Amino acid sequence: MTDITSSEFARATAVERTGDHSFTAELGAGWKVAGAVNGGYLLSVAGQALRALNPNTPDPLVISTYYLGPSKEGSVDITTRVLREGRSTGSYGIELSQNGSPTISAMATMGNLGALPDDVATTAAPPQLPSPEECVSVAEASEDFKKAAPLIERFDMRLDPAAAGFAVGKPSGRGELQGWIRLADGTDPDPLALLTFLDAFPPVMFDLGRFNWAPTMELTAHLRAQPAPGWISAKLYTRNIAGGMFEEDCELWDSAGRLVAQSRQLARQPRD
Amino acid sequence: MTDITSSEFARATAVERTGDHSFTAELGAGWKVAGAVNGGYLLSVAGQALRALNPNTPDPLVISTYYLGPSKEGSVDITTRVLREGRSTGSYGIELSQNGSPTISAMATMGNLGALPDDVATTAAPPQLPSPEECVSVAEASEDFKKAAPLIERFDMRLDPAAAGFAVGKPSGRGELQGWIRLADGTDPDPLALLTFLDAFPPVMFDLGRFNWAPTMELTAHLRAQPAPGWISAKLYTRNIAGGMFEEDCELWDSAGRLVAQSRQLARQPRD
Repeated sequence: MTDITSSEFARATAVERTGDHSFTAELGAGWKVAGAVNGGYLLSVAGQALRALNPNTPDPLVISTYYLGPSKEGSVDITTRVLREGRSTGSYGIELSQNGSPTISAMATMGNLGALPDDVATTAAPPQLPSPEECVSVAEASEDFKKAAPLIERFDMRLDPAAAGFAVGKPSGRGELQGWIRLADGTDPDPLALLTFLDAFPPVMFDLGRFNWAPTMELTAHLRAQPAPGWISAKLYTRNIAGGMFEEDCELWDSAGRLVAQSRQLARQPRD
Repeated sequence: MTDITSSEFARATAVERTGDHSFTAELGAGWKVAGAVNGGYLLSVAGQALRALNPNTPDPLVISTYYLGPSKEGSVDITTRVLREGRSTGSYGIELSQNGSPTISAMATMGNLGALPDDVATTAAPPQLPSPEECVSVAEASEDFKKAAPLIERFDMRLDPAAAGFAVGKPSGRGELQGWIRLADGTDPDPLALLTFLDAFPPVMFDLGRFNWAPTMELTAHLRAQPAPGWISAKLYTRNIAGGMFEEDCELWDSAGRLVAQSRQLARQPRD
């Protein structure tokens, strides 16, 4: 196992401080899908900058991102502003821009997942999944697919065969996907990696037979616990497809059976 | 029926423009609960200011709000900033402050619900509810409760008896509430009223026997269609109670059976 701080993921999300409230980062071409840098990866980059603001609040408890335009590989400028700093949490605004054009505007409340009380009364149940060995490895995707979505090579991602019918032209029509994910280099997940995992899976619209690109308008993620080492299991689903848009929910569960992250995004329906 | 523009709700959420990007509003004491102005009502006030920015984009398609501190009745200062304006949507930042202290920071993407394509492939099902006449009217609450939560008198709100056991000391323990809601003066709902409805019901924690105040950290709402006239039915639930926090989802359905609004909030658990 690689330590998270020296992993491919940590290098790809590293930020360099340029002022009290400003940073730069280098967006990697390997995190692109359909020509643009992945939105979950951008959340993790934003998370790295927010983490650098205050050592007492390293983790986004909640982060909401509005995607204003596609992000390209290469340099990105990051500016932050304090909304309110309290004893155990801090709320911040953060904007990413490239060549002077804003690409992302976000807000987050940061805290320390390791310092939360240990009560758990969660009623949600983890996804029922075959073992990773019995799932469909996305590494088996065609070279064409990998070329269009180099992002998928950053992960070891396994899809539940019951929800991966789209890969062989037989979407289930339920609007659900399930699977396993971990970083390709074997690094155990940390909270910021969870932000990338939340938007890493194929769009749930694939399971409805809609294969085109679905641009995210907004994504809000809650991080609720430090993930245990090992595989993360994921469940994605949409329940409201209407008016040219759809919502997509993602839940991430760790190897200890904790619901560690939840997200909901609003996206435009793919154009057919 | 009162026209929405002359209703109690419209008067209570009215904003006055003070500059290109600034407004003031008067927060009404009647919209308080547990000593602070209700968060859903504040969302509607923010929505009124955002609506005034561009006549082509009157409706929040998605709005994310971070609650930085409690809001009091009385004057509030509102400032907006353009994140990106496109052909059919515009994204904005908006901040509310009282006496120089920020109380809310939000972002929204505005659009025109009336101009969306009319496709509907929603798989979610509306709540199964007895008729409003067979439900428990919140107007029957004790005078003490109404005094602590004058907000509830702004609505005609009826709770599903199966989920209203908390009112007679018998919470179901499922973490679910269902019911009907409309404005007390009989005005039909508009999109901005939906924002208030999303946070108007008793906290879902009541159904778990936790009766204290649960402060919202963040709330994101999606508005997905113009509501038809008449009652709105609502379903609220929590599935992840852990680490001193819980998420609360709310769905609002109109009288035509459309899922018109969805929200998720992250809140701190009530202190026992």
